[in-house]
Parts: sequence; C-alpha cells; structure tokens
Amino acid sequence: MSERTLSGIGVTPLSGVGTVVWYRPDEALELDDPPRQSEVDAEAERERFEDARDAAREELEAERERARERVGDEEAAVFDAHLQFLDDPEIESAVDAELEEGLSAEHAVSEGFAGPIEQFEAMEGRMAERADDLRDIRDRLVRLLVGGERTDLSALPEGSVVFAERLTPSDTAQLDPEIVSGFVTATGGRTSHAAIFARSLALPAVVGVGDDLFAVEEGTDVVVDGDTGDVTLNPTEETRAAAADSDRAEVRSDPVATSDGKPIEVAANVGQPAELEGATEQGADGIGLYRTEFLFLERESPPDEEEQYETYVEALDAFPEGRVVVRTLDVGGDKPIPYLELPEEENPFLGDRGIRRSLGVDADLFETQLRALLRAAADGAGDLAVMIPMVATVEEFESARETLDSVAADLDSEAVDYEIPEFGLMIETPSAAFMADEFAARAEFLSIGTNDLTQYVMAASRGNERVSELHDPQHPAVLRAIARTVDGAEGTDAWVGMCGEMAGDPELTELLVGLSLDELSMSAVTIPDVKANVSETDRESAEKLAKRTLQASTKRDVERLLDGDAEN
Amino acid sequence: MSERTLSGIGVTPLSGVGTVVWYRPDEALELDDPPRQSEVDAEAERERFEDARDAAREELEAERERARERVGDEEAAVFDAHLQFLDDPEIESAVDAELEEGLSAEHAVSEGFAGPIEQFEAMEGRMAERADDLRDIRDRLVRLLVGGERTDLSALPEGSVVFAERLTPSDTAQLDPEIVSGFVTATGGRTSHAAIFARSLALPAVVGVGDDLFAVEEGTDVVVDGDTGDVTLNPTEETRAAAADSDRAEVRSDPVATSDGKPIEVAANVGQPAELEGATEQGADGIGLYRTEFLFLERESPPDEEEQYETYVEALDAFPEGRVVVRTLDVGGDKPIPYLELPEEENPFLGDRGIRRSLGVDADLFETQLRALLRAAADGAGDLAVMIPMVATVEEFESARETLDSVAADLDSEAVDYEIPEFGLMIETPSAAFMADEFAARAEFLSIGTNDLTQYVMAASRGNERVSELHDPQHPAVLRAIARTVDGAEGTDAWVGMCGEMAGDPELTELLVGLSLDELSMSAVTIPDVKANVSETDRESAEKLAKRTLQASTKRDVERLLDGDAEN
Repeated sequence: MSERTLSGIGVTPLSGVGTVVWYRPDEALELDDPPRQSEVDAEAERERFEDARDAAREELEAERERARERVGDEEAAVFDAHLQFLDDPEIESAVDAELEEGLSAEHAVSEGFAGPIEQFEAMEGRMAERADDLRDIRDRLVRLLVGGERTDLSALPEGSVVFAERLTPSDTAQLDPEIVSGFVTATGGRTSHAAIFARSLALPAVVGVGDDLFAVEEGTDVVVDGDTGDVTLNPTEETRAAAADSDRAEVRSDPVATSDGKPIEVAANVGQPAELEGATEQGADGIGLYRTEFLFLERESPPDEEEQYETYVEALDAFPEGRVVVRTLDVGGDKPIPYLELPEEENPFLGDRGIRRSLGVDADLFETQLRALLRAAADGAGDLAVMIPMVATVEEFESARETLDSVAADLDSEAVDYEIPEFGLMIETPSAAFMADEFAARAEFLSIGTNDLTQYVMAASRGNERVSELHDPQHPAVLRAIARTVDGAEGTDAWVGMCGEMAGDPELTELLVGLSLDELSMSAVTIPDVKANVSETDRESAEKLAKRTLQASTKRDVERLLDGDAEN
Repeated sequence: MSERTLSGIGVTPLSGVGTVVWYRPDEALELDDPPRQSEVDAEAERERFEDARDAAREELEAERERARERVGDEEAAVFDAHLQFLDDPEIESAVDAELEEGLSAEHAVSEGFAGPIEQFEAMEGRMAERADDLRDIRDRLVRLLVGGERTDLSALPEGSVVFAERLTPSDTAQLDPEIVSGFVTATGGRTSHAAIFARSLALPAVVGVGDDLFAVEEGTDVVVDGDTGDVTLNPTEETRAAAADSDRAEVRSDPVATSDGKPIEVAANVGQPAELEGATEQGADGIGLYRTEFLFLERESPPDEEEQYETYVEALDAFPEGRVVVRTLDVGGDKPIPYLELPEEENPFLGDRGIRRSLGVDADLFETQLRALLRAAADGAGDLAVMIPMVATVEEFESARETLDSVAADLDSEAVDYEIPEFGLMIETPSAAFMADEFAARAEFLSIGTNDLTQYVMAASRGNERVSELHDPQHPAVLRAIARTVDGAEGTDAWVGMCGEMAGDPELTELLVGLSLDELSMSAVTIPDVKANVSETDRESAEKLAKRTLQASTKRDVERLLDGDAEN
C-alpha cells in the first residue's frame, strides 16, 4: 500500500505514529425475538437486570474516576448524569412493568427504555440530548446482559490512533494519553471540545478531516501531525522517521522577548490543580487564566473559604516568580450546579452569567471567593491577579471593585492577613471592547477572551456546527475588536493579555505581538512553540502585518496575509 | 379621593382617560369534590366534554381572527398552538381515561391535564412554557364546563384602561383600540412585547410601574400618559382636561429637516400590509423597515413569487414619492415555520438565522423573494430598497449581491421587466459595526437595528428579564457601536439609517441627529413627535451632545446628559 495523506485541522503541535483503531459507539445490539413468556423465570430475569445495573454502575464509576484524574471534574460530570439515569425511578418502573409482563431482562430494558427515549426525543434543545444519554445507558445494559463487547477506549493497545466521527466529552475522558498515540476525527474545529481536550492532555490530534476519513480501514498504519493537520496513511519509513524527530520547540523556563527586546509574558490556562505541574514543565511564566469552576462543580454545597484559600495558595506557590491570574466564578444557565439557582434561559450565552450573577444572586459566593483570594495573595509565593468575567459595563466593574474593598475592610477589622491583588477583567463582550479605554483607566489589566469575544462579535455561538465558519477569531471584525481593546489601554498603566484559544495558536504569534499584546495565555502544550515564535518575532514587521490584517475585508484576506502570500 | 400619581415607562406619545379594569388571567377554578361515581352518567359527561371542547374551539378561532385583523399573523399564531393542543390525542386519551373512571367532565379535564402539565413543567426552556399553554386550555375548558366567567379582553366597556401584571401576546391581541383607552402593566420595558404592541396600535400605555400598581382598585378613574409615563389616579378635572388636549405633535406629511437645514428622512416600520395606511396617516416619508416574515408564517408552504410581487407592489404604491426598504426573510430557530427545516439551537440568537439561512438552507426561498422584489421595483410607484438582515461578514453581503445579480440575469434572459433596487444591510451584529467601512464601500445604505445590536453588543438577550437592565441602547457601548457605523460610512455615498426601537423614542431624536443618522424608521405612532423634534434640532448642539455621550462612562451618565443636567 502506498503512502496517502488526508488533510484536517491540526490542533496540537505534536506528531504521533500508530495504528488506526476505529471507535464507533455501540449501536443498539440486535436482540433475538423475545422467548415465550412461559419459558421465562420472572424472578431470575429481575435478578439479571439488577446485576447488569450493578455492573453498569461499576463501569460508570470507574470511567468517572479515570475522567476525573485525567481530565477534570467538569468532564467527569457526564458520568454523573448517566449514573442518575441508571437509578431513575420512572425508568426503573418502566423496566419493571416489562419484566412483570414476562420479558427477558434484555428485552425488558430495550422495551422499558423506549418510552422515556421517545419522550425526550420529542423535546427540544438540551432535553433532546438526554435521549442520547438514555440510549447510551440502554445499550450499556443490553451489552452487559447479552455479554456483548465494545471498543473500550480506556483499554486500547499501546500505539492506538483513535479514528472516530466525533469524540464526546465522555469518550475523550476515557483516553489514556500514556497509551494512545493520538486521535483523528471527521468533524470538529480548533475550538471544539475534542481539540481543547487534546491540547490539555498534550495528545497529537487532527480534527475536521471530513468524510474521507470513513474509508480508512482499521489497523492501517498512520502518522498524525497535529501541527500541519496531515494524517498520513501507510507512511514510508521516511515519513515515520520525520514524525519521530519532529522538532518540537525546546522548553524554555525563562521569560522571552521579541527579537527587538519587548518582553512578552507567556502563561498557561489552567482548569484545575492537576494541570499546574504541566504548566511549569512546559515553561509557563505564570498562569494567565486560572478557571475556578472546578471548585464549584459536582458537589452539594459550595466550597468554603478555607478550601478555596488553600487551592489559591497552591497555585501561587507553583509560580513563586510569576503571576497567577485567577478568574472569579463564571457560570450561567448552561451549567448544572445543584446549590445555585440556575434558571433555564432561551439564550443562556446572552443571559445571567459571570459577574452578573456575582453581583446578583451569587453575591455571597463572590464575597467568600474574594476573601479567600485576598488572604491567599498575602500567603502564596507568586503574585496574584484577580480577573472578573463577562463584564459589559463600567458600573459592573466598579461594583466588583467595591465588593473587593469591602471584603478587604472586613479582613482588616478582623486583623486577618491579606493583600490587595492586581484587579482586572476579561474583555469578552463587544461592549467591553468598545469601552476598553474606560476599563483601562480603572483596571490593572485587561485580558481578551477570544472564544467568547468571537462568539458575541460574530453573533455565532461556539459549539453550533451550523455557524462554525463564523466562529473564528481570524475574521477581521474580531481582530478589530482586539485592536480597539489594545488602543483603549494605550497610554494607561494597564497591561493587555489574551487568554482565548487564539493565544495558543503558534501561527498567530507574530500577529498578536503586532497587535501589541503584553501577555499570551494558553494550553500548556503550546507554550514552547509560542515562546520560540515570540523570540523570533521582530516587532516592526509584526506591527506591519497587524496593520494590514486590520485593513483586510475578509477572513480569507487575513489568512492570505498570515500565509505571507499577499502583496501590499 | 385625592389625585395620586404612579410612575412607569411611557411607551406611546399618547394620553388616555378611562376607568381601571383589572385583568387577572383566570386562575384554575376551584372544583367541588368529585361526585360519587354511581351518580355520574359517563356517556353524558363525555358529551359535555365534547361540547366544551367545541365551545373552546369556537372561542379560540374567534380570538385568532380578531388578533389577525388587529395585530397580525404573528400574534395570531399563539392561538394556533392552543387549537392544536385542544385536539392533541395524548391529552384527549388522558381525559378519556378519567371519564372512564367515572369522573365528571370538569374533574376529568382537571385530572387528565395534570400529567401532561407536569411533564412539560419538568422540561426546560420553551417546552416549560407549554405548561402555561396547557394550563390556559385547561382553565378555559373548566370555565366553560362550570359556566364560570372571565374578563373578556375583547368585550370590555368603552373607556376601559386595562391594568395587569403583564400582558402576553394572546392578551394584547384581544384588545380593541377603538374601545380600550389604554393599558398599564406592572412589568415590562420600552422594548417589551406589550410596548411594541401599544405603539403599533397607537394605544396610550405605561409599562414597568412595579408592585404599587396592585393596590389600585377596579373602577378607579385614571389618566394614562404614555409620554411622561405618569399614571394619575382619581384625576382632577384639570388633569383630565390637560390629558384631553394633550398636545400631540401635528401630523406632517412633508419631509422634515433640522433647524439648520439637514434633511432627515422619517419613515415607518411596517410588519404587514394592514399597517401601510397608518404609516401614511402619520406622515411617514416612506418605509424604513418592511418586515416580510408575515408572508411566510402560518401556512403550509412558502408564498410564491406572484403573491410576494403583489405584496411588494402594494407597499411601493402606498408611497409613490417615497422609499420602501424591504428586509428579506429573517427567521431562525426561534420561529415555527412548518415547511422550513428550523433546528432547535441552544442559543438561537447566536445561530443559523437571517442571511445565514438565505445563503444556505433557504437559498431557493431567497431567490424567489429577490425575483419578486426586482419585478416589483419596476412596477411599483415608490423607490424600492432591499435590505439584508443579520450580516456578519463582507463575504455574506457579496454573496447576497451575487444572488441578486444572477436573479437579474435570469429575468433579463426571460425578458421580464425588473429594476435593480438600492441594496443594503442591517447593522445588527457587532461585526457589521466594526466592519462598517467595508460594508459602506459595497452597499447603498446601512440601517442600524438597535434591538439586536444592543443584544449582541451587551451580550444580553431581549426578552430575558434577568438582564433587561443591560438590554438598553443608552449604554455608551451601544452608542459607540452606532458612532463606529456612521464613521465607517463617512466619505462614501452610503446613507445610514436606524430602524430599531431607539429610533422612535422622541427623547433621543437630538442625540440621533447628532450622531449623523440620515434616516430614522419607527412605529408609525411616534412619527409626528419625531418629525417635530427633528425640525427643532440644531445640528451643532446635537453634535456636541452626541460627542459628550460618546465620552460617557455609564448609562446613567448618558441619561444625565440627555436630561440636560450635566455640566461639561
């Protein structure tokens, strides 16, 4: 077989060599006709059902643990939903009714789930997705009852390269990066779940290859280049060797500057404590975005001040010479947190979230978080910065600052040690970009969250495949929003960073330097490449490039300019 | 009783005098204990249920007709949903089951609906709202069965001023503007459904009065001032007389200019042909936004080219000296149109809508609409302009123009008469505002849709009460987005208009003139006031005002500047 290459979107600057293992989530197993009722021992079938449910529970709990260890609490939450459904009384009674009718356990599961699945299917939006969850659980139970097998993503042979149409959070959570050599999916883009996952686990990955992928056979040898997006089938020895040596940039723990000497801070985005080590290993100067949602998810009550304090100190101690930017709680109606009043909203991305909640229904949580942060600022080794998400108005930022001041006054009167950290905000609403001058006059820093900023500027939600072409920060309108932000901060003392996915794309480093950003924060795995690119960047030509892209009419024009094949 | 005044938000520049009629939608009627089964004639109860259902159907159909005549097809669609539920087989069989158990018809309805209502309640988002629909239908049936009465909004005594906590689309559709003197609600804002409704029917109305409203007793005399937002209870003769003479601006059919001579086109927003007459009566110079959704809603197949052609010619003939800006079909996942593939999206306002669909799944509809428009441009009396909604990228606008050109080429080759209309776009995504210079270089006009622009700039959806404070075009970020749009068009031949609710607020006329808008388009009822204000506006001081608001930090600062009590 001769070498052949498919093209997709590379999402990690890593190459992997291995063998194709197709992952096709179990389809419903075909069951034989049900046995005649007289042949079934109803009591025995009821026991078989109970046993299958116990086994399913064990599988799910094990998968949840693996997910928690490897990826994080947020990913693990998928399994909680499945576990809940497994014990849902309504579904149980539906299966019971079928068992009482004299069906075998597998048929009773198959029939008993049909009604609830149909009900969910008839619903809209996220509820319809529950039908998929129920199907997953049904298929798991039927498989356990008939002794069927499925591709167990957590037990693949070493050197597997997983091929799939798509990988869901519950799928990726199963992958062991020590064993798997990479993955390739037919769908998805740079900011899809699977792509972000690949970067956070430093896994070679290519997404968005398209339907050509389906023609690739199980067991084919393959090289996955997460840099170029090439997926090479039946690679020659040369290709393999090239992939093996593929020159990843060296890890540099020292701060970097452009070739003409402007220092650029290159920091890591971190979603939970387990990622701190990877961040230091990859040479992060600090943390540019420490998401705190993990502290609040998957529990029955909010974390207390002490638990938060310890978590923040741990992060600060990981970067004794650096800065740690902690973002306050950023949740809205699209995340399930049992102890918060989270309403269903028709457009949750345009709803009550981030600072809106922290100044409103979640005011108590916000104060506790700020107390823990101010105390940690005094005791942790590194420098703390506190960042407010989803700010749209100057009033909101000023109110947040007032809350911080009143928390400090409380600590003062209690004679508790604290320190006032740097205080700034995410620029992720178009409003914040338009008002950047006003914010820069009031904040120590602005950090551009390109994922949400792109979503709002382009009015195209992330995760909606129908508008994924629009959800791209290389649209010139997004670049102009970034430029407007940087311009707004000019002449003030505020530094301007970026902590969206865009910051970690090494191909955009020159452009971002040219747009005058002071800091770039990203998934740890891309830090060495970005540091290397920063140090090769000359500011004058970077600024020329930036200026040209700001005059571009279309995304294609921007891409051409970045490829260097434009004239003017 | 002495005169007393409540304050709210005035939403129409009209005053009304009348008597308070409280509208409290029926609560579930308290039923007595069910009679013993032996006393019930199941067959007779089944017939009573059928009769009540027939009566409910008649009521609903009559209400739908009234809604269609007075307000339009979109409002009437609410009743279709109710009619559908009335015949839903699942609900019918639930009621049947109760009848078979020997319950009386009213108890069978009450019990039979309980399950489906509970199911919908357990769902999320829009599905949960269906529970309200079901409750409405249940209460209607029970009322008919027990002979209860309810406030019939369509049969109020002349001079009624309706007081309510809120008015839903199905409520407002019942109000007859010839009979009702106005309405006042405790909730709502300037852009709430009820407010828009009041303007389109020229009804005096005040919204957002708050809880004080509930203390007002039925039968109280009241003056509603939709200009100041004052609701005066037990008005003195003086107050009544003042309201009766309240000096509405005179209707001016001639175009107006600022006091220093800059002509400003003042046009009407129109949602269906029935509103054309009101637009001319109020002195509109033309139509600045002709929404075409009414042509597509509530039918089983799309309108053909001929039907559309006639509709557009009718609009053009209504303004022989003016311009009619027709917006092409603007739908997305939040509108039910049976013959379109409209997906459920988690954030429909950030999804596949407007031009995105017209260049994608609805390409055939788009071509047919453009054919009808180009033909109408040749045959109608006024000047046609075609406006593209929801544009985010230059490519989209260019593709739309290419479609127009290819439709023109087809008409050419068929030797059908046509004319190329002015071609422009809505500025409603932040992207379009950031790229306004690029659009102005390619379009004959830009028209700012402030309702959506505000929603996207502030990342706060319209209609979500939790973020209604943020959904306000007086936030300085929105003003800056408007200014960026106007600046982008400077030096080009493109004119810049505004067709959001903001344009019709007479208190903002000076600001909008100062922001250099060429055209303002609004609900017909506010045209005389805005024309009067335009002619009193001096451009130099308007520009100073605009400049100051663009330097404001907060919405409160903007409001202070508009109130004229600011210093600098």
